[in-house]
Amino acid sequence: MTRVVCAQLAPVIGDLSANAGTSTAAVEAAAADGADLIVLPELVTSGYVFSSAAEARSLAIPPGSPLLADWGRAAGNATVVGGFCEAGDDGRVYNSAAVVDRSGVLAVYRKTHLWDAEGTAFSPGTAAPPVVETAAGRVGVLICYDMEFPEMTRGLALAGADVLAVPTNWPLMPRPDGERPGEVVTAMAAARANRVYLACCDRTGVERGQSWTEGTSIVDPDGWVLATAGPGVASIAVDVDLGAARRKTISDVNDVLADRRTDVYRQF
Amino acid sequence: MTRVVCAQLAPVIGDLSANAGTSTAAVEAAAADGADLIVLPELVTSGYVFSSAAEARSLAIPPGSPLLADWGRAAGNATVVGGFCEAGDDGRVYNSAAVVDRSGVLAVYRKTHLWDAEGTAFSPGTAAPPVVETAAGRVGVLICYDMEFPEMTRGLALAGADVLAVPTNWPLMPRPDGERPGEVVTAMAAARANRVYLACCDRTGVERGQSWTEGTSIVDPDGWVLATAGPGVASIAVDVDLGAARRKTISDVNDVLADRRTDVYRQF
Repeated sequence: MTRVVCAQLAPVIGDLSANAGTSTAAVEAAAADGADLIVLPELVTSGYVFSSAAEARSLAIPPGSPLLADWGRAAGNATVVGGFCEAGDDGRVYNSAAVVDRSGVLAVYRKTHLWDAEGTAFSPGTAAPPVVETAAGRVGVLICYDMEFPEMTRGLALAGADVLAVPTNWPLMPRPDGERPGEVVTAMAAARANRVYLACCDRTGVERGQSWTEGTSIVDPDGWVLATAGPGVASIAVDVDLGAARRKTISDVNDVLADRRTDVYRQF
Repeated sequence: MTRVVCAQLAPVIGDLSANAGTSTAAVEAAAADGADLIVLPELVTSGYVFSSAAEARSLAIPPGSPLLADWGRAAGNATVVGGFCEAGDDGRVYNSAAVVDRSGVLAVYRKTHLWDAEGTAFSPGTAAPPVVETAAGRVGVLICYDMEFPEMTRGLALAGADVLAVPTNWPLMPRPDGERPGEVVTAMAAARANRVYLACCDRTGVERGQSWTEGTSIVDPDGWVLATAGPGVASIAVDVDLGAARRKTISDVNDVLADRRTDVYRQF
């Protein structure tokens, strides 16, 4: 079994040092609890609601930053996927996620679908998200609004991901009584369409007037929510058989990936 | 406003005459209630659980059948989308849906993704589903398992559909207490990913030991269920502004279709 942990943290806007401490401590605690895969929120190093592009740039760190290496060291045998404000080697600033273990940074993904005002602070990424072979299985990475595009979840499943690790900052939106957040509905549908796990790690706290959904959720390949956080909950953990994501059959003859009809899709 | 009605009928396996009567009466009743778009279940003319390919063939009708024309006549000003067992002009048998109004058959779509044993009775379709300009708006058509493929719902949205009419026969599957059927979760996610309406018309009754989900649901472009049927409910109706499906914006700068990154998707 693989223990998946999402740490629904509350980063402090602008305080790199405090956020490094909070996130590294959360990784350490999850590892002590037996975690194999630890997901942290989007932009957990910096906070999210920047007052200007200059503020975002001032908080950007390169993938070689000691902060990310510290996550890997704190993780023990686990793999960490966490969001950070990236100072790109091309001089641009990206909303990125790093996949890290004790050996160092395994991959960096730059968010390609930017939400709302993010475009004023960040350049969009131009590369498809990776599927990383880790000690915890094959981990695909998306960031927040990326997940809303079925092309992305499908693409990662076709590329062999067992689990999609999704650092997010979901701004709180109205929803009907009794309904799950819309983003969680999307995660459930993506899971069942592709028979993969999703581990979406939202944040908590109120930042410059912005509240968050606090909807951190881990979803299984049948599309059911195994665990969900809710307001104020600091972390969730589940033990899953990641191998289930490699079985795509759903009846005697049906297979959710093999049944695709690309000959038909090309006609749209 | 557009009134959308889904008639969750119980066709009788093998009884073309009885099913013609039941379905035409349901269309007539919906029209009398002010319906603009009426959706009927998959294979409502024939029933679903065939004992053999020969039985399916014996129940197949061509698109020129008086039965489909009768739906159109009974519909008044409304448009009907209903499933039928099609005798193709190529000698094959298809699991199809017709779009019909008082002027006749506007389009026929042949299910492309066949579920479980369907392949023994039906040939899969080879053409993308249509988006039909109707008096009730732009109607895209899918049949049951087709909807589970995000390529299909996305494709119809890109082709301009306001509403996806989905005749279905959802076999009853286990689900956790308090959860909606997985197919409804998928419909909700497809609606919000594409900002379209979905009108999924399931069936009721027990046929040769097979029970159905009875999960008929109409979903809005925010992904919320406007109405859902449940066991034994004969029909649901909602009045919607189909124009809402032509507004794809979800923030000051975001648009669910314009934000697609085909340059990235091509890299998978």
